[in-house]
Amino acid sequence: MSMKQETIDRIRKFSTDRNWDQFHTPANLAKSIAIEAGELLECYQWSDDANPEHVKQELADVIVYCRNMLDALGLDEDEIVNAKMDQNEEKYPVKKPTGATKSILSSKREDKLCRTAM
Amino acid sequence: MSMKQETIDRIRKFSTDRNWDQFHTPANLAKSIAIEAGELLECYQWSDDANPEHVKQELADVIVYCRNMLDALGLDEDEIVNAKMDQNEEKYPVKKPTGATKSILSSKREDKLCRTAM
Amino acid sequence: MSMKQETIDRIRKFSTDRNWDQFHTPANLAKSIAIEAGELLECYQWSDDANPEHVKQELADVIVYCRNMLDALGLDEDEIVNAKMDQNEEKYPVKKPTGATKSILSSKREDKLCRTAM
Amino acid sequence: MSMKQETIDRIRKFSTDRNWDQFHTPANLAKSIAIEAGELLECYQWSDDANPEHVKQELADVIVYCRNMLDALGLDEDEIVNAKMDQNEEKYPVKKPTGATKSILSSKREDKLCRTAM
Repeated sequence: MSMKQETIDRIRKFSTDRNWDQFHTPANLAKSIAIEAGELLECYQWSDDANPEHVKQELADVIVYCRNMLDALGLDEDEIVNAKMDQNEEKYPVKKPTGATKSILSSKREDKLCRTAM
Repeated sequence: MSMKQETIDRIRKFSTDRNWDQFHTPANLAKSIAIEAGELLECYQWSDDANPEHVKQELADVIVYCRNMLDALGLDEDEIVNAKMDQNEEKYPVKKPTGATKSILSSKREDKLCRTAM
Repeated sequence: MSMKQETIDRIRKFSTDRNWDQFHTPANLAKSIAIEAGELLECYQWSDDANPEHVKQELADVIVYCRNMLDALGLDEDEIVNAKMDQNEEKYPVKKPTGATKSILSSKREDKLCRTAM
Repeated sequence: MSMKQETIDRIRKFSTDRNWDQFHTPANLAKSIAIEAGELLECYQWSDDANPEHVKQELADVIVYCRNMLDALGLDEDEIVNAKMDQNEEKYPVKKPTGATKSILSSKREDKLCRTAM
Protein backbone atom coordinates (compact mmCIF):
# COMPACT_ATOMS: atom_id res chain seq x y z
CA MET A 1 0.00 0.00 0.00
CA SER A 2 1.06 3.54 -0.68
CA MET A 3 1.63 6.04 2.09
CA LYS A 4 -1.54 7.23 3.80
CA GLN A 5 -2.21 10.94 4.12
CA GLU A 6 -1.94 10.66 7.91
CA THR A 7 1.56 9.18 7.51
CA ILE A 8 2.57 12.05 5.25
CA ASP A 9 1.22 14.43 7.89
CA ARG A 10 3.11 12.58 10.61
CA ILE A 11 6.41 13.00 8.74
CA ARG A 12 5.75 16.72 8.31
CA LYS A 13 4.79 17.19 11.95
CA PHE A 14 7.94 15.36 13.07
CA SER A 15 10.15 17.97 11.37
CA THR A 16 8.02 20.95 12.30
CA ASP A 17 7.81 19.99 15.98
CA ARG A 18 11.63 19.83 16.16
CA ASN A 19 12.16 22.99 14.15
CA TRP A 20 14.11 20.98 11.59
CA ASP A 21 12.44 22.34 8.44
CA GLN A 22 15.18 24.97 8.35
CA PHE A 23 17.73 22.21 7.65
CA HIS A 24 15.60 20.59 4.98
CA THR A 25 16.92 22.45 1.97
CA PRO A 26 16.76 20.50 -1.28
CA ALA A 27 20.56 20.19 -1.36
CA ASN A 28 20.72 18.88 2.22
CA LEU A 29 17.93 16.41 1.49
CA ALA A 30 19.70 15.18 -1.65
CA LYS A 31 22.72 14.50 0.59
CA SER A 32 20.49 12.82 3.16
CA ILE A 33 18.94 10.50 0.58
CA ALA A 34 22.42 9.51 -0.64
CA ILE A 35 23.60 8.92 2.94
CA GLU A 36 20.61 6.73 3.80
CA ALA A 37 20.93 4.91 0.47
CA GLY A 38 24.49 4.09 1.55
CA GLU A 39 23.18 2.68 4.84
CA LEU A 40 20.62 0.60 2.98
CA LEU A 41 23.37 -0.68 0.71
CA GLU A 42 25.45 -1.55 3.79
CA CYS A 43 22.87 -4.24 4.60
CA TYR A 44 24.08 -5.98 1.45
CA GLN A 45 27.78 -5.07 1.66
CA TRP A 46 29.24 -8.55 2.03
CA SER A 47 26.25 -10.77 1.35
CA ASP A 48 22.86 -10.75 -0.35
CA ASP A 49 21.43 -12.23 2.84
CA ALA A 50 20.57 -9.05 4.73
CA ASN A 51 18.94 -8.59 8.12
CA PRO A 52 15.24 -8.01 7.29
CA GLU A 53 14.60 -5.63 10.19
CA HIS A 54 17.60 -3.52 9.32
CA VAL A 55 16.59 -3.36 5.66
CA LYS A 56 13.09 -2.15 6.57
CA GLN A 57 14.50 0.63 8.72
CA GLU A 58 16.99 1.83 6.15
CA LEU A 59 14.53 1.68 3.25
CA ALA A 60 12.05 3.63 5.38
CA ASP A 61 14.73 6.27 6.00
CA VAL A 62 15.28 6.72 2.27
CA ILE A 63 11.52 6.98 1.70
CA VAL A 64 11.06 9.52 4.51
CA TYR A 65 13.78 11.77 3.11
CA CYS A 66 12.27 11.45 -0.38
CA ARG A 67 8.99 12.61 1.14
CA ASN A 68 10.79 15.53 2.86
CA MET A 69 12.33 16.47 -0.49
CA LEU A 70 8.98 16.35 -2.30
CA ASP A 71 7.67 18.75 0.36
CA ALA A 72 10.70 21.05 0.25
CA LEU A 73 10.32 21.39 -3.52
CA GLY A 74 6.51 21.46 -3.56
CA LEU A 75 6.38 18.42 -5.80
CA ASP A 76 3.62 15.85 -6.23
CA GLU A 77 4.95 12.30 -5.98
CA ASP A 78 2.37 10.81 -8.31
CA GLU A 79 2.99 13.48 -10.93
CA ILE A 80 6.79 13.27 -11.09
CA VAL A 81 6.74 9.48 -11.08
CA ASN A 82 4.28 9.35 -13.96
CA ALA A 83 6.30 11.90 -15.92
CA LYS A 84 9.38 9.73 -15.43
CA MET A 85 7.53 6.56 -16.37
CA ASP A 86 6.49 8.30 -19.62
CA GLN A 87 10.19 8.77 -20.37
CA ASN A 88 11.14 5.25 -19.30
CA GLU A 89 8.45 3.67 -21.47
CA GLU A 90 9.62 5.67 -24.47
CA LYS A 91 13.30 4.99 -23.81
CA TYR A 92 12.89 1.26 -23.21
CA PRO A 93 10.16 0.02 -25.57
CA VAL A 94 8.81 -3.45 -24.92
CA LYS A 95 10.73 -5.83 -27.15
CA LYS A 96 8.83 -7.95 -29.60
CA PRO A 97 9.55 -11.60 -28.95
CA THR A 98 11.21 -12.04 -32.31
CA GLY A 99 14.92 -12.65 -32.44
CA ALA A 100 17.47 -11.53 -29.91
CA THR A 101 15.82 -9.81 -26.98
CA LYS A 102 18.07 -7.21 -25.47
CA SER A 103 18.40 -7.55 -21.76
CA ILE A 104 18.43 -4.73 -19.25
CA LEU A 105 22.17 -5.30 -19.17
CA SER A 106 22.78 -4.58 -22.81
CA SER A 107 20.21 -1.77 -22.79
CA LYS A 108 21.99 -0.18 -19.89
CA ARG A 109 25.41 -0.72 -21.42
CA GLU A 110 24.49 0.95 -24.68
CA ASP A 111 23.29 3.81 -22.57
CA LYS A 112 26.76 4.24 -21.21
CA LEU A 113 28.22 4.93 -24.63
CA CYS A 114 26.85 8.41 -24.41
CA ARG A 115 28.53 9.02 -21.09
CA THR A 116 32.16 9.75 -20.50
CA ALA A 117 32.52 9.90 -16.78
CA MET A 118 34.42 12.58 -14.94
CA MET B 1 -0.19 13.53 -3.08
CA SER B 2 0.97 10.03 -2.48
CA MET B 3 1.33 7.52 -5.26
CA LYS B 4 -1.95 6.28 -6.74
CA GLN B 5 -2.61 2.56 -6.99
CA GLU B 6 -2.64 2.84 -10.77
CA THR B 7 0.85 4.37 -10.67
CA ILE B 8 2.09 1.51 -8.50
CA ASP B 9 0.56 -0.88 -11.02
CA ARG B 10 2.21 0.99 -13.88
CA ILE B 11 5.64 0.60 -12.28
CA ARG B 12 5.07 -3.12 -11.79
CA LYS B 13 3.82 -3.59 -15.35
CA PHE B 14 6.85 -1.74 -16.72
CA SER B 15 9.21 -4.33 -15.20
CA THR B 16 7.04 -7.34 -15.95
CA ASP B 17 6.55 -6.37 -19.60
CA ARG B 18 10.32 -6.16 -20.07
CA ASN B 19 11.04 -9.34 -18.12
CA TRP B 20 13.17 -7.29 -15.72
CA ASP B 21 11.78 -8.66 -12.45
CA GLN B 22 14.53 -11.28 -12.58
CA PHE B 23 17.10 -8.48 -12.09
CA HIS B 24 15.17 -6.89 -9.25
CA THR B 25 16.75 -8.75 -6.36
CA PRO B 26 16.81 -6.80 -3.11
CA ALA B 27 20.60 -6.43 -3.32
CA ASN B 28 20.47 -5.12 -6.91
CA LEU B 29 17.74 -2.68 -5.96
CA ALA B 30 19.73 -1.42 -2.97
CA LYS B 31 22.56 -0.71 -5.42
CA SER B 32 20.11 0.93 -7.82
CA ILE B 33 18.75 3.24 -5.12
CA ALA B 34 22.30 4.28 -4.19
CA ILE B 35 23.20 4.87 -7.84
CA GLU B 36 20.13 7.03 -8.46
CA ALA B 37 20.69 8.86 -5.17
CA GLY B 38 24.14 9.72 -6.53
CA GLU B 39 22.58 11.10 -9.70
CA LEU B 40 20.13 13.17 -7.64
CA LEU B 41 23.05 14.48 -5.60
CA GLU B 42 24.86 15.35 -8.83
CA CYS B 43 22.21 18.02 -9.44
CA TYR B 44 23.64 19.78 -6.37
CA GLN B 45 27.32 18.91 -6.89
CA TRP B 46 28.72 22.41 -7.37
CA SER B 47 25.77 24.60 -6.45
CA ASP B 48 22.53 24.55 -4.50
CA ASP B 49 20.84 26.00 -7.57
CA ALA B 50 19.86 22.83 -9.38
CA ASN B 51 17.99 22.34 -12.63
CA PRO B 52 14.37 21.71 -11.51
CA GLU B 53 13.51 19.32 -14.35
CA HIS B 54 16.60 17.25 -13.72
CA VAL B 55 15.87 17.08 -10.00
CA LYS B 56 12.32 15.83 -10.63
CA GLN B 57 13.59 13.06 -12.89
CA GLU B 58 16.28 11.89 -10.51
CA LEU B 59 14.06 12.02 -7.44
CA ALA B 60 11.44 10.03 -9.36
CA ASP B 61 14.08 7.43 -10.20
CA VAL B 62 14.93 6.98 -6.51
CA ILE B 63 11.23 6.68 -5.66
CA VAL B 64 10.59 4.14 -8.42
CA TYR B 65 13.43 1.91 -7.24
CA CYS B 66 12.17 2.21 -3.64
CA ARG B 67 8.81 1.01 -4.90
CA ASN B 68 10.50 -1.88 -6.76
CA MET B 69 12.30 -2.82 -3.54
CA LEU B 70 9.11 -2.73 -1.47
CA ASP B 71 7.62 -5.14 -4.01
CA ALA B 72 10.67 -7.39 -4.14
CA LEU B 73 10.59 -7.75 -0.36
CA GLY B 74 6.80 -7.85 -0.03
CA LEU B 75 6.81 -4.81 2.24
CA ASP B 76 4.06 -2.28 2.87
CA GLU B 77 5.33 1.29 2.52
CA ASP B 78 2.93 2.75 5.04
CA GLU B 79 3.78 0.10 7.62
CA ILE B 80 7.58 0.33 7.47
CA VAL B 81 7.49 4.14 7.45
CA ASN B 82 5.27 4.24 10.52
CA ALA B 83 7.46 1.71 12.32
CA LYS B 84 10.47 3.92 11.60
CA MET B 85 8.66 7.06 12.67
CA ASP B 86 7.90 5.33 15.99
CA GLN B 87 11.65 4.88 16.44
CA ASN B 88 12.48 8.41 15.31
CA GLU B 89 9.97 9.97 17.70
CA GLU B 90 11.39 7.99 20.59
CA LYS B 91 14.98 8.72 19.63
CA TYR B 92 14.50 12.44 19.08
CA PRO B 93 11.94 13.64 21.64
CA VAL B 94 10.51 17.09 21.10
CA LYS B 95 12.57 19.47 23.20
CA LYS B 96 10.84 21.59 25.80
CA PRO B 97 11.50 25.27 25.14
CA THR B 98 13.40 25.67 28.40
CA GLY B 99 17.13 26.22 28.25
CA ALA B 100 19.46 25.13 25.54
CA THR B 101 17.61 23.52 22.67
CA LYS B 102 19.69 20.97 20.95
CA SER B 103 19.72 21.32 17.22
CA ILE B 104 19.62 18.50 14.72
CA LEU B 105 23.34 19.13 14.32
CA SER B 106 24.22 18.42 17.92
CA SER B 107 21.71 15.57 18.09
CA LYS B 108 23.27 14.01 15.05
CA ARG B 109 26.80 14.61 16.31
CA GLU B 110 26.15 12.95 19.65
CA ASP B 111 24.84 10.05 17.66
CA LYS B 112 28.17 9.67 16.00
CA LEU B 113 29.99 9.08 19.27
CA CYS B 114 28.68 5.55 19.23
CA ARG B 115 30.07 4.91 15.78
CA THR B 116 33.62 4.20 14.85
CA ALA B 117 33.63 4.02 11.14
CA MET B 118 35.37 1.37 9.12
CA MET C 1 52.44 12.74 0.32
CA SER C 2 51.23 9.70 -1.52
CA MET C 3 50.85 6.36 0.16
CA LYS C 4 54.11 4.66 1.07
CA GLN C 5 54.76 1.11 -0.08
CA GLU C 6 54.78 -0.03 3.55
CA THR C 7 51.28 1.44 4.00
CA ILE C 8 50.06 -0.41 0.94
CA ASP C 9 51.58 -3.57 2.39
CA ARG C 10 49.94 -2.88 5.75
CA ILE C 11 46.49 -2.64 4.11
CA ARG C 12 47.05 -5.93 2.29
CA LYS C 13 48.30 -7.69 5.40
CA PHE C 14 45.28 -6.45 7.37
CA SER C 15 42.90 -8.29 5.01
CA THR C 16 45.05 -11.36 4.60
CA ASP C 17 45.56 -11.81 8.35
CA ARG C 18 41.78 -11.79 8.88
CA ASN C 19 41.04 -14.01 5.88
CA TRP C 20 38.93 -11.21 4.41
CA ASP C 21 40.32 -11.28 0.87
CA GLN C 22 37.54 -13.75 0.03
CA PHE C 23 34.99 -10.95 0.60
CA HIS C 24 36.94 -8.42 -1.45
CA THR C 25 35.35 -9.08 -4.81
CA PRO C 26 35.29 -6.06 -7.12
CA ALA C 27 31.50 -5.79 -6.78
CA ASN C 28 31.63 -5.89 -2.97
CA LEU C 29 34.39 -3.29 -2.95
CA ALA C 30 32.41 -1.01 -5.26
CA LYS C 31 29.57 -1.24 -2.72
CA SER C 32 32.02 -0.61 0.11
CA ILE C 33 33.41 2.52 -1.54
CA ALA C 34 29.85 3.84 -2.02
CA ILE C 35 28.96 3.05 1.60
CA GLU C 36 32.03 4.81 2.96
CA ALA C 37 31.50 7.73 0.58
CA GLY C 38 28.05 8.04 2.17
CA GLU C 39 29.61 8.15 5.63
CA LEU C 40 32.07 10.82 4.48
CA LEU C 41 29.16 12.79 3.06
CA GLU C 42 27.35 12.43 6.40
CA CYS C 43 30.02 14.67 7.95
CA TYR C 44 28.60 17.45 5.75
CA GLN C 45 24.91 16.46 5.90
CA TRP C 46 23.55 19.54 7.66
CA SER C 47 26.51 21.90 7.60
CA ASP C 48 29.76 22.55 5.77
CA ASP C 49 31.45 22.77 9.16
CA ALA C 50 32.40 19.15 9.67
CA ASN C 51 34.27 17.49 12.51
CA PRO C 52 37.88 17.30 11.21
CA GLU C 53 38.72 14.03 12.98
CA HIS C 54 35.63 12.35 11.64
CA VAL C 55 36.36 13.56 8.10
CA LYS C 56 39.89 12.16 8.24
CA GLN C 57 38.61 8.75 9.31
CA GLU C 58 35.91 8.54 6.67
CA LEU C 59 38.14 9.80 3.85
CA ALA C 60 40.75 7.24 4.90
CA ASP C 61 38.08 4.52 4.72
CA VAL C 62 37.25 5.46 1.13
CA ILE C 63 40.94 5.48 0.22
CA VAL C 64 41.58 2.09 1.85
CA TYR C 65 38.72 0.48 -0.06
CA CYS C 66 39.98 2.08 -3.30
CA ARG C 67 43.34 0.48 -2.57
CA ASN C 68 41.63 -2.88 -1.93
CA MET C 69 39.83 -2.55 -5.25
CA LEU C 70 43.02 -1.71 -7.15
CA ASP C 71 44.50 -4.90 -5.68
CA ALA C 72 41.43 -7.02 -6.38
CA LEU C 73 41.52 -5.96 -10.04
CA GLY C 74 45.30 -5.96 -10.40
CA LEU C 75 45.30 -2.30 -11.37
CA ASP C 76 48.07 0.28 -11.02
CA GLU C 77 46.81 3.47 -9.37
CA ASP C 78 49.23 5.74 -11.17
CA GLU C 79 48.37 4.23 -14.55
CA ILE C 80 44.58 4.43 -14.31
CA VAL C 81 44.69 7.94 -12.90
CA ASN C 82 46.92 9.17 -15.71
CA ALA C 83 44.72 7.49 -18.32
CA LYS C 84 41.72 9.29 -16.83
CA MET C 85 43.56 12.62 -16.67
CA ASP C 86 44.31 12.21 -20.40
CA GLN C 87 40.56 11.99 -20.98
CA ASN C 88 39.74 14.85 -18.62
CA GLU C 89 42.27 17.16 -20.25
CA GLU C 90 40.85 16.41 -23.68
CA LYS C 91 37.25 16.77 -22.53
CA TYR C 92 37.76 20.01 -20.63
CA PRO C 93 40.34 22.05 -22.55
CA VAL C 94 41.80 25.05 -20.78
CA LYS C 95 39.77 28.07 -21.85
CA LYS C 96 41.54 30.96 -23.47
CA PRO C 97 40.92 34.15 -21.48
CA THR C 98 39.01 35.73 -24.36
CA GLY C 99 35.29 36.22 -24.00
CA ALA C 100 32.94 34.24 -21.87
CA THR C 101 34.75 31.63 -19.84
CA LYS C 102 32.62 28.63 -19.20
CA SER C 103 32.60 27.59 -15.61
CA ILE C 104 32.69 24.03 -14.32
CA LEU C 105 28.96 24.50 -13.72
CA SER C 106 28.09 25.16 -17.31
CA SER C 107 30.58 22.58 -18.54
CA LYS C 108 29.02 20.02 -16.28
CA ARG C 109 25.50 21.05 -17.20
CA GLU C 110 26.13 20.73 -20.93
CA ASP C 111 27.40 17.30 -20.15
CA LYS C 112 24.05 16.35 -18.75
CA LEU C 113 22.25 17.01 -21.99
CA CYS C 114 23.50 13.71 -23.25
CA ARG C 115 22.12 11.86 -20.27
CA THR C 116 18.57 10.87 -19.64
CA ALA C 117 18.59 9.26 -16.29
CA MET C 118 16.77 6.10 -15.43
CA MET D 1 52.16 1.32 -7.52
CA SER D 2 51.10 4.35 -5.57
CA MET D 3 50.55 7.70 -7.22
CA LYS D 4 53.73 9.43 -8.39
CA GLN D 5 54.43 12.99 -7.29
CA GLU D 6 54.15 14.12 -10.91
CA THR D 7 50.65 12.61 -11.09
CA ILE D 8 49.65 14.46 -7.92
CA ASP D 9 51.02 17.64 -9.50
CA ARG D 10 49.12 16.93 -12.71
CA ILE D 11 45.82 16.65 -10.81
CA ARG D 12 46.50 19.95 -9.02
CA LYS D 13 47.47 21.72 -12.25
CA PHE D 14 44.32 20.46 -13.96
CA SER D 15 42.13 22.27 -11.42
CA THR D 16 44.28 25.36 -11.17
CA ASP D 17 44.48 25.83 -14.94
CA ARG D 18 40.67 25.76 -15.17
CA ASN D 19 40.15 27.98 -12.13
CA TRP D 20 38.18 25.16 -10.51
CA ASP D 21 39.85 25.23 -7.08
CA GLN D 22 37.13 27.67 -6.02
CA PHE D 23 34.56 24.86 -6.40
CA HIS D 24 36.67 22.36 -4.52
CA THR D 25 35.35 22.99 -1.03
CA PRO D 26 35.50 19.97 1.28
CA ALA D 27 31.68 19.67 1.23
CA ASN D 28 31.53 19.77 -2.58
CA LEU D 29 34.29 17.20 -2.81
CA ALA D 30 32.52 14.90 -0.36
CA LYS D 31 29.50 15.11 -2.67
CA SER D 32 31.72 14.48 -5.69
CA ILE D 33 33.25 11.37 -4.15
CA ALA D 34 29.76 10.01 -3.38
CA ILE D 35 28.59 10.79 -6.92
CA GLU D 36 31.57 9.07 -8.53
CA ALA D 37 31.24 6.14 -6.12
CA GLY D 38 27.69 5.80 -7.43
CA GLU D 39 28.98 5.70 -11.00
CA LEU D 40 31.54 3.06 -10.04
CA LEU D 41 28.76 1.05 -8.40
CA GLU D 42 26.69 1.39 -11.58
CA CYS D 43 29.26 -0.81 -13.34
CA TYR D 44 28.05 -3.61 -11.05
CA GLN D 45 24.35 -2.67 -10.92
CA TRP D 46 22.88 -5.77 -12.54
CA SER D 47 25.85 -8.08 -12.73
CA ASP D 48 29.25 -8.69 -11.15
CA ASP D 49 30.66 -8.89 -14.66
CA ALA D 50 31.54 -5.26 -15.25
CA ASN D 51 33.17 -3.58 -18.22
CA PRO D 52 36.87 -3.36 -17.22
CA GLU D 53 37.55 -0.09 -19.04
CA HIS D 54 34.55 1.57 -17.46
CA VAL D 55 35.55 0.37 -14.00
CA LYS D 56 39.06 1.79 -14.41
CA GLN D 57 37.66 5.19 -15.37
CA GLU D 58 35.17 5.36 -12.52
CA LEU D 59 37.62 4.14 -9.90
CA ALA D 60 40.13 6.73 -11.15
CA ASP D 61 37.47 9.42 -10.76
CA VAL D 62 36.91 8.47 -7.11
CA ILE D 63 40.67 8.48 -6.50
CA VAL D 64 41.14 11.88 -8.17
CA TYR D 65 38.43 13.47 -6.04
CA CYS D 66 39.94 11.88 -2.91
CA ARG D 67 43.22 13.51 -3.89
CA ASN D 68 41.44 16.85 -4.42
CA MET D 69 39.91 16.50 -0.96
CA LEU D 70 43.24 15.70 0.69
CA ASP D 71 44.57 18.90 -0.89
CA ALA D 72 41.56 21.01 0.06
CA LEU D 73 41.93 19.94 3.70
CA GLY D 74 45.74 19.97 3.75
CA LEU D 75 45.84 16.31 4.71
CA ASP D 76 48.59 13.76 4.15
CA GLU D 77 47.24 10.55 2.61
CA ASP D 78 49.82 8.31 4.21
CA GLU D 79 49.22 9.81 7.64
CA ILE D 80 45.42 9.58 7.71
CA VAL D 81 45.44 6.07 6.28
CA ASN D 82 47.90 4.86 8.91
CA ALA D 83 45.89 6.52 11.69
CA LYS D 84 42.80 4.70 10.44
CA MET D 85 44.64 1.40 10.14
CA ASP D 86 45.70 1.81 13.78
CA GLN D 87 42.01 1.99 14.67
CA ASN D 88 41.03 -0.89 12.38
CA GLU D 89 43.70 -3.17 13.80
CA GLU D 90 42.55 -2.44 17.32
CA LYS D 91 38.87 -2.79 16.46
CA TYR D 92 39.25 -6.03 14.52
CA PRO D 93 41.98 -8.06 16.25
CA VAL D 94 43.31 -11.07 14.36
CA LYS D 95 41.37 -14.08 15.62
CA LYS D 96 43.28 -16.96 17.11
CA PRO D 97 42.46 -20.15 15.21
CA THR D 98 40.85 -21.74 18.24
CA GLY D 99 37.09 -22.18 18.30
CA ALA D 100 34.57 -20.19 16.40
CA THR D 101 36.19 -17.69 14.10
CA LYS D 102 34.03 -14.67 13.59
CA SER D 103 33.68 -13.68 10.00
CA ILE D 104 33.67 -10.15 8.67
CA LEU D 105 29.91 -10.60 8.40
CA SER D 106 29.32 -11.27 12.05
CA SER D 107 31.92 -8.65 13.05
CA LYS D 108 30.15 -6.10 10.94
CA ARG D 109 26.74 -7.16 12.19
CA GLU D 110 27.69 -6.81 15.85
CA ASP D 111 28.88 -3.38 14.94
CA LYS D 112 25.43 -2.46 13.83
CA LEU D 113 23.95 -3.12 17.22
CA CYS D 114 25.27 0.22 18.34
CA ARG D 115 23.63 2.04 15.48
CA THR D 116 20.00 2.96 15.15
CA ALA D 117 19.67 4.48 11.77
CA MET D 118 17.77 7.64 11.02
